[in-house]
Amino acid sequence: MADPRRMSLNVATVRQQWDLGQMIQGCVRHGITGIAPWRDKLQDYGVSRAAREIRAAGLTVTSLCRGGMFPAADPAGRRAALEDNRRAVDEAVAIGAHCLVLVVGGMPPGSKDLPGARQQVFDGIAALLEYAREAAMPLAIEPLHPMYAADRACINTLRHALDLCDALGAGVGVAVDVYHVWWDLELAAQIRRAGRERLLGFHVCDWLVPTVDLLLDRGMMGDGIIDIPAIRNWMEDAGFGDLIEVEIFSRDNWWQRDADEVLATCLERFPGAV
Amino acid sequence: MADPRRMSLNVATVRQQWDLGQMIQGCVRHGITGIAPWRDKLQDYGVSRAAREIRAAGLTVTSLCRGGMFPAADPAGRRAALEDNRRAVDEAVAIGAHCLVLVVGGMPPGSKDLPGARQQVFDGIAALLEYAREAAMPLAIEPLHPMYAADRACINTLRHALDLCDALGAGVGVAVDVYHVWWDLELAAQIRRAGRERLLGFHVCDWLVPTVDLLLDRGMMGDGIIDIPAIRNWMEDAGFGDLIEVEIFSRDNWWQRDADEVLATCLERFPGAV
Repeated sequence: MADPRRMSLNVATVRQQWDLGQMIQGCVRHGITGIAPWRDKLQDYGVSRAAREIRAAGLTVTSLCRGGMFPAADPAGRRAALEDNRRAVDEAVAIGAHCLVLVVGGMPPGSKDLPGARQQVFDGIAALLEYAREAAMPLAIEPLHPMYAADRACINTLRHALDLCDALGAGVGVAVDVYHVWWDLELAAQIRRAGRERLLGFHVCDWLVPTVDLLLDRGMMGDGIIDIPAIRNWMEDAGFGDLIEVEIFSRDNWWQRDADEVLATCLERFPGAV
Repeated sequence: MADPRRMSLNVATVRQQWDLGQMIQGCVRHGITGIAPWRDKLQDYGVSRAAREIRAAGLTVTSLCRGGMFPAADPAGRRAALEDNRRAVDEAVAIGAHCLVLVVGGMPPGSKDLPGARQQVFDGIAALLEYAREAAMPLAIEPLHPMYAADRACINTLRHALDLCDALGAGVGVAVDVYHVWWDLELAAQIRRAGRERLLGFHVCDWLVPTVDLLLDRGMMGDGIIDIPAIRNWMEDAGFGDLIEVEIFSRDNWWQRDADEVLATCLERFPGAV
C-alpha cells in the first residue's frame, strides 16, 4: 500500500475551487510534497509568480499538464499548435517540471482520418522534440482511454505510445494514468517494456460504475473498480519510484466539495486504495 | 460503397418503437432481407411464433443477441449463467440464427478482479461450447469498447477475442462492431488474422462527437467520425460477405423517431456511409 507522502496533487482535482496559489498553500498545509499544474491555472496565476511560490514551498513539480493537441485541419493550425507546444516547454522549464505531459489530440473537426491524425501526432512530437531536448524537458505521451480517440487523443494504448517512443528516440517517454489504461490486457507487459527511463508519470483516480459522463465523472481512489495497487506494483517493479499524481475530474462530486476535504480524502485513501 | 440489399436489421435499432412482429413486417415493407433479434424481444413475442413469421417472411437471421454475461460472484450464479446461455443457444437454433452473439460480461458487483473475470469468461464459453457445437450454433464473441470493461464485457479488443478463439477451437468466432473497435490501431491486422471462418458478424453504427451517454448515444452511419467503408473493406478483404447488421442504441434521437423513418434512413446511408 502506498505511503501518502508519495502523493502529488494534479491541480485538476481541485480546479473548480482554488487558484494555483491556493493549491500551493493547500499542499503545504496538508504535507503534500508534489504538485502538477495545468497550463490554464498556471497562466491565470502568472508563471514567474507561480514558479517562485512553488520553489519557496519546496514542492516537487511532477509534471506540467499539458502540451499536445497536434492535429489540425491545415498547416497554419499545425504551426500554431507547434508554437504553443514550445511555449508549454518554456513554462515547464520555468516551474522546474519533471516532464511535460502530452495529450496528443484527436481528429480535426469534420475528419474521419484516424491514421492521418496519428501521423500528425507523430510529426508534431518529432518537430517539438528538438526544442524539448535543448531545454532538457522530457515529453510524456499520455495514452488516453479509447473513448477519447476521436476528439482528445488518438494514442490510446501504452503499446502505441511506446511504439512512438521507440521511433522518436531520447527525450520522450510516457505518463501512465490508471483511468485510461486499467482495462488493457497488455498493461503489465507494456509497463515492463517501458522501463524506468520512460515511465515519466503515474496518475491515479478510479473508474466508477456506473460512469455517467465520459469526461467529468472520475472517482476517488477506492470508490471504483480499478485495482490500483496491482498497477502501482507493476510500475514499481519496472523501477518507477517518483511521486504519484492524483488527478480527478469530478464535476458533480469532488469539484463540489471543500478543497481541503478533497485533499484530506486523497491522502487518507493512499494506504488502502493506492 | 455498400449495397442497401446487404442490410440486416439488428432490432435494437427500433426497440423502443416496435415489437418483433412489427419489426419483421417492417423489414418486409422496406425490402430488408436480414434481421437480428434480441432475446427479450424474441421472448416477449414468443419464440415459435417469431420463428414461423421470420421463415414466412424469408428473412435471414444474421444473429441472435445475446448470450454471455458469464462472470458471477458465486458458483450458483455461474451455473445459472451457463444454463441461461444454453437456452440462448436453443432459441438461436429455433429461429435459424447464423450465430449467437456473446457479450461476455464484466466484473461481478463489488469485484476489482479483472483477470478473474476474464478467466470466468473463458471458462464460461468453454463450458457452453460443447452444447453449442452439438446444436451446430456458432458462438460469436463480440469485443466491446473498453468503456464497458467494468460492467458489460471484459473482452475489449479483437486481438483478445481471437486469442480466446485460438484457445477454444472450432465453433467460436467473433462479431465485429465498428462502434467498439474503430479506434484500435491493430484493427486491420486482427481482422486479417480472424479470417473468413471466424468473422461471424459485422455491425455498423457511428461514433458521435460529442458522445453524451456511454451506452445510448450511438449515431446513424455517416453522422459520426468512423471511417466505416475502410473497415468494411478490411472485412471483405478477409472474406466476409454476409449481411451487415445496423445496430443503433439512441435513446434521445433514433428511438424517438418513427421506426419506418429510421429504417429508410439506414438504407439511404448504405451507399454513402457504409
